[in-house]
Amino acid sequence: MGISDCGFGALSRDISNRMNDLKRLGLLRRRMSGAGLSGLLVTHPADVRWLCGFTGSSAALAVTRRGARLFTDGRYTAQAAAEVHSAKVEIVPSAPAVAAVQWLAAQVAAGQIGRRDTSGAKAHVRAADLVPGMNPRPTLKGKLSLQSAPSSDSIFSVGFDSAHTSVAELERLKAAVPAGLRRKLLVPVKSLVEPLRWLKDEDELAVMAEAAKLGDDLFAHLLGFIRPGLTETAVAAELEYQARVRGAEGMSFDSIVAAGARSALPHGRASEAKLPRRGFLTLDFGVILKGYCSDMTRTVCLGKPSAREREVYEAVLEAQEAAVASVGAGVECGAVDEAARGVLRRAGMAEAFRHSTGHGVGLEIHEGPRVGAGQKDKLAPGMVITIEPGAYFAGEFGVRIEDMVVVTRTGGRVLTGSPKALIEL
Amino acid sequence: MGISDCGFGALSRDISNRMNDLKRLGLLRRRMSGAGLSGLLVTHPADVRWLCGFTGSSAALAVTRRGARLFTDGRYTAQAAAEVHSAKVEIVPSAPAVAAVQWLAAQVAAGQIGRRDTSGAKAHVRAADLVPGMNPRPTLKGKLSLQSAPSSDSIFSVGFDSAHTSVAELERLKAAVPAGLRRKLLVPVKSLVEPLRWLKDEDELAVMAEAAKLGDDLFAHLLGFIRPGLTETAVAAELEYQARVRGAEGMSFDSIVAAGARSALPHGRASEAKLPRRGFLTLDFGVILKGYCSDMTRTVCLGKPSAREREVYEAVLEAQEAAVASVGAGVECGAVDEAARGVLRRAGMAEAFRHSTGHGVGLEIHEGPRVGAGQKDKLAPGMVITIEPGAYFAGEFGVRIEDMVVVTRTGGRVLTGSPKALIEL
Repeated sequence: MGISDCGFGALSRDISNRMNDLKRLGLLRRRMSGAGLSGLLVTHPADVRWLCGFTGSSAALAVTRRGARLFTDGRYTAQAAAEVHSAKVEIVPSAPAVAAVQWLAAQVAAGQIGRRDTSGAKAHVRAADLVPGMNPRPTLKGKLSLQSAPSSDSIFSVGFDSAHTSVAELERLKAAVPAGLRRKLLVPVKSLVEPLRWLKDEDELAVMAEAAKLGDDLFAHLLGFIRPGLTETAVAAELEYQARVRGAEGMSFDSIVAAGARSALPHGRASEAKLPRRGFLTLDFGVILKGYCSDMTRTVCLGKPSAREREVYEAVLEAQEAAVASVGAGVECGAVDEAARGVLRRAGMAEAFRHSTGHGVGLEIHEGPRVGAGQKDKLAPGMVITIEPGAYFAGEFGVRIEDMVVVTRTGGRVLTGSPKALIEL
Repeated sequence: MGISDCGFGALSRDISNRMNDLKRLGLLRRRMSGAGLSGLLVTHPADVRWLCGFTGSSAALAVTRRGARLFTDGRYTAQAAAEVHSAKVEIVPSAPAVAAVQWLAAQVAAGQIGRRDTSGAKAHVRAADLVPGMNPRPTLKGKLSLQSAPSSDSIFSVGFDSAHTSVAELERLKAAVPAGLRRKLLVPVKSLVEPLRWLKDEDELAVMAEAAKLGDDLFAHLLGFIRPGLTETAVAAELEYQARVRGAEGMSFDSIVAAGARSALPHGRASEAKLPRRGFLTLDFGVILKGYCSDMTRTVCLGKPSAREREVYEAVLEAQEAAVASVGAGVECGAVDEAARGVLRRAGMAEAFRHSTGHGVGLEIHEGPRVGAGQKDKLAPGMVITIEPGAYFAGEFGVRIEDMVVVTRTGGRVLTGSPKALIEL
């Protein structure tokens, strides 16, 4: 490793990352306050990574109003020390989530979580919560007050991620903490971190633009590589190899390379089928760069398209462009979906387009917001979504066209730069 | 597609697959009976695939004592028709699991699930369950009997997979069925299907041997490719490209290519670091073939190893071979772990080996049984496990050696054929 790789450049990146992480923890604490939570157990890997930078697969992050502590196992000692600056790291021999919830319980016992009860008549403190011998007495203002501040006189409530915690795992966490604390220490909470991740900051947008650009470069490369007789798998192999040598950490999902009648499969992963002399070929793929996913689709034509194929292609393209044009801050996701769906409906292809128009993308290939029929979530500046309508005719052919779009204050900025006019190979 | 691909060969494969699926459903029904279940909601993709052959990502399989029905969405219409022969397929517009649990509720209402109560005094049937006007009367043997058999006079109990159903998803499923049925229609069940998958049949073992062989071929190829100065990522790119062109559907996990001090990271995914002139290089990777994962690790040495490096390598190799030799039907997994751990303990390297010795592998890269300290699960013929002890010295180097081993009636058969004596490059 050269000097430029471990000198000031790396140090200043570290400082910038740390500031980002602290800002994100601050945003989360604001949401926790809003939800009445004094603590949160974060276990979904993408959320853990976004909040504190840790990229290992086995970890739990305990966030309180004052601090944050990452629990992971011995395989990740060196990695956690290198990556995590905004939370204390604790290496544990057991399951990280169990250790984290036990630490949260200990924080409660030590009076480090929650606040003194100042809610007066509606005090959440029950007699059973009080330490024997304590002498609660009303103050002049009728508020409950205590001589000293043992843990149990405070009001607290700690959430766990009900969308990413299995029923069995919850039982395991419950068994790890004192029975009396379970109800308040394991409050089901949905989507407290993920919606924060929907809004990308400048650093994230720069990485995602770079990932989208790499996707474009790969598509351009494939145009020179594709020829009848190759298997779909050979195309995927070339795609994934070029992605790797150009710096991708991996692919966002199993690459879709679907030729001829297989292009009618919306999820036609590359198979051993050979590219025909004539017919559509759908390429849907993405790369992972610094943890962030790209996602794009182009459908090209081997040989000359039939009039029907051209008609369908043009309808899908018109639908895709209408949806892109509809993107803007404050617009409901359902309206973007309808912009695409309406075009295909008017072209008599409503039945041929049976999936959603798009989805949010970032550290995960599928995140919110969902861009589907009737979705009420509103687009906001910094969101990155895909716009990917399609039309599929089983046994015949299919077409899909997909871009990544950043929502800006004034509309949408398309990150995918590859041409969309029908390409004949 | 040539005639040989769609003629009798494909047909006979279909028939063989269908028979396998029916056999597997039969095995599951036996376990359901043992657990007192009249139905089961299967949602974990690997379980769904193993039971009925469906490879799509969004599906739920409802299994009753008499039938099985697969629910998936419109993206998979053609794929489900092609892949699923042992269950009826239903394409649904909503979430497949919700549709499946509603179908199970309807089966109960129609009297298609459960059995007449014949349990006598300890009848599970409660007054509230009985249809008004029914006239239960004791038989001569004191058993509860009914004039006719409406749904609600039957005893039933339907399980869901508590290890793979999130707390939030369970709430959604509960909300989708009548309140009175919830308790018996959504019984938490853990690990009903997975332990069946631990035992591979001859077809599965043949595929896994093929996958392990492909891993060996790739390792041999890499030995000719690796040279100082290449980035770890370039090695991973070559590995993954060769895997693809040789028929792999993908990699089992993010390839680990960890050179020099990075070999001390048990999970050192390929980075932009360059291979040094001298030092260890750990390669841990696997391919996916027909859905099944392979997994192997070799540590090679660039240049001459130091005496210390050689000593550690030999200790890890001895530990690995001791664990392989200990494999046999009826042996506790903990004993296999101890076979490896004991060698490293006696070599003074107990602290350097902080993970488990291995794990089951199959449709998932990590499945049961766990081959870790104190694990009581017993090995049985047909199980495929990894044996992968290692020793890691932070900031210096690490060594890991891993084979896949099939448990046989007389011991263990190693699927990984690559040499294990230290290779110097």
